[in-house]
Order: sequence, then C-alpha cells, then structure tokens
Amino acid sequence: MDSSAENPLVGFARRLREIRLERGLSQEQLASLAGLDRTYVSGCETGRRNATIRTICRLSDALGVDPAALVSDLNQLPLEADQDP
Amino acid sequence: MDSSAENPLVGFARRLREIRLERGLSQEQLASLAGLDRTYVSGCETGRRNATIRTICRLSDALGVDPAALVSDLNQLPLEADQDP
Repeated sequence: MDSSAENPLVGFARRLREIRLERGLSQEQLASLAGLDRTYVSGCETGRRNATIRTICRLSDALGVDPAALVSDLNQLPLEADQDP
Repeated sequence: MDSSAENPLVGFARRLREIRLERGLSQEQLASLAGLDRTYVSGCETGRRNATIRTICRLSDALGVDPAALVSDLNQLPLEADQDP
C-alpha cells in the first residue's frame, strides 16, 4: 500500500482541477471562496497536498458539489497502477 | 464556515464507526487492516482527528468501500446545524 500512497493525491488533484474548470473558476477564485490560500489550492491540484476532511469539505462547498465527488473511486487508481507488475 | 468546521469530522466519525460495525470489525482490526494505529482510528471515530485523503483511502480500502462512502453528504451537516440560529 505504501508504494501506491501517492496515487490518491494525483486522482484528487485531477478531480479538483476538472470540477474547478467546469465551474469556470481560477485557482485564486476557488481559494477565496473556500477560505484557503491560492498556493494551497495549487498544491492540491498538483498532488503535493494531502488535504484533510475539513479542506475537502471547504473545497467541495466552494465548488457546489458533494465532498464525495472529489474522492470517489480514488482507491481504484492504485489498483490500475498495480496491473503493471 | 469556521463555526461549522468541526461538523464534518463528526459526520465522518459516525460514518466510519457505522461501516466498521457493519463489517463486524473492532477498531483494532480496522487499524491493523488499514496500517494505522488503533488510537488514530479511535480519534477518527470520536471526531477528534481530521483525516487526510491518504488516510480516508486506507480506511475505505480496509472497509471495502469507496472513499466517497466516508465523506458523502458531510457538507449537509453544517447546514442542518445552522438551522438553529
């Protein structure tokens, strides 16, 4: 499990960016709506930040989606990666 | 938003405990399956721990559920709480 520990963050990053762009928001606008720093949002979107429940809820609130939308299927990413031995 | 910042953790705590009990697992068994400390799982189930994406994924993996199951609707808890002025 340790070797795939980075993957959920990459999946989250992709999801966050996708939904933010669908909403037509800049990272700065999303950060402002969520009460977070722009560099933090940027860090989430590059898979560097391991966001907490509170932050996931702030971001999903700001995006107008259920928190589940940001984390659904994240466990499947490591499994896909594991298919290459 | 700050005043409701605790609520997502309480919702997460409830959800985690509920699914763990459905699986017939003790906190110790879940901790062992997820590669976490039992006191950390206990902290999550009492709303004291603000788990990260990686931890949410470890827990959901161990429980055999999608990570979304642990965080869906968490944003609605603050809204309900806000109905009492």
